[in-house]
Amino acid sequence: MRALLLHASEFKVNIIDKSNKPYGIKPETKKSSTENMTECLVVFFCVEKNDNSQQIQALFKEIVKITKELSTTSIMVAPFVHLSSNIAEPEKAKKLYFSLLKKLKNTYFKVSSSHFGYHKSLLLDIKGHPGSFRYREF
Amino acid sequence: MRALLLHASEFKVNIIDKSNKPYGIKPETKKSSTENMTECLVVFFCVEKNDNSQQIQALFKEIVKITKELSTTSIMVAPFVHLSSNIAEPEKAKKLYFSLLKKLKNTYFKVSSSHFGYHKSLLLDIKGHPGSFRYREF
Repeated sequence: MRALLLHASEFKVNIIDKSNKPYGIKPETKKSSTENMTECLVVFFCVEKNDNSQQIQALFKEIVKITKELSTTSIMVAPFVHLSSNIAEPEKAKKLYFSLLKKLKNTYFKVSSSHFGYHKSLLLDIKGHPGSFRYREF
Repeated sequence: MRALLLHASEFKVNIIDKSNKPYGIKPETKKSSTENMTECLVVFFCVEKNDNSQQIQALFKEIVKITKELSTTSIMVAPFVHLSSNIAEPEKAKKLYFSLLKKLKNTYFKVSSSHFGYHKSLLLDIKGHPGSFRYREF
């Protein structure tokens, strides 16, 4: 699993169209035409072939740690296939995405997500302090 | 080498402060306090330990191919350490960054770059068509 964790002033996606890649993808049910959040941690993450609940748990722990450092409780979960060439089957990626969402929603966090399986335009405004961009592999 | 290639409506960085990570980094001379470009291909790329001019040449060829598909000749080169856990020594990364810039500037492209070795805030507005986000490893 690979993740890019960004401390953002603003995050906004417009949900444009269902994606048909990777082969076999079944997009989640569309819940809105746009998702946005301000002053938050944006969690772009990519599920890889051998990942399972262990990697989700490690990512969850890292999110808890970083949000404490940043003094934010707002999290935008952004499934993002564009961080690896060794990506998992889409059904597995979707299952682990939902399990991360469930874990986060069972806490004190305010959580949104940017939709699984769609083409989206993306507006990102990322802060420029030393810990505003972080990359992790689990 | 890893690269994230984005078709953007807007890209803007504010150059905030010199970075002191990774250890030994010598930031390039500051050429401006902000860099921005509209309607362009943004090339985030991360130089890894075993990379050399071959990977730069492969990235260059990919940039040429993608810009033709997108019908743009504007390129924002953005050195970006946050795509790998196996990063090159900073001096090597800087040398290869300058060699990519030189190659691109010797063409018909309009080229800008987002500064090597600085903390930056980043505003990104990325389009939402099927080819607007691409990930590559070389």
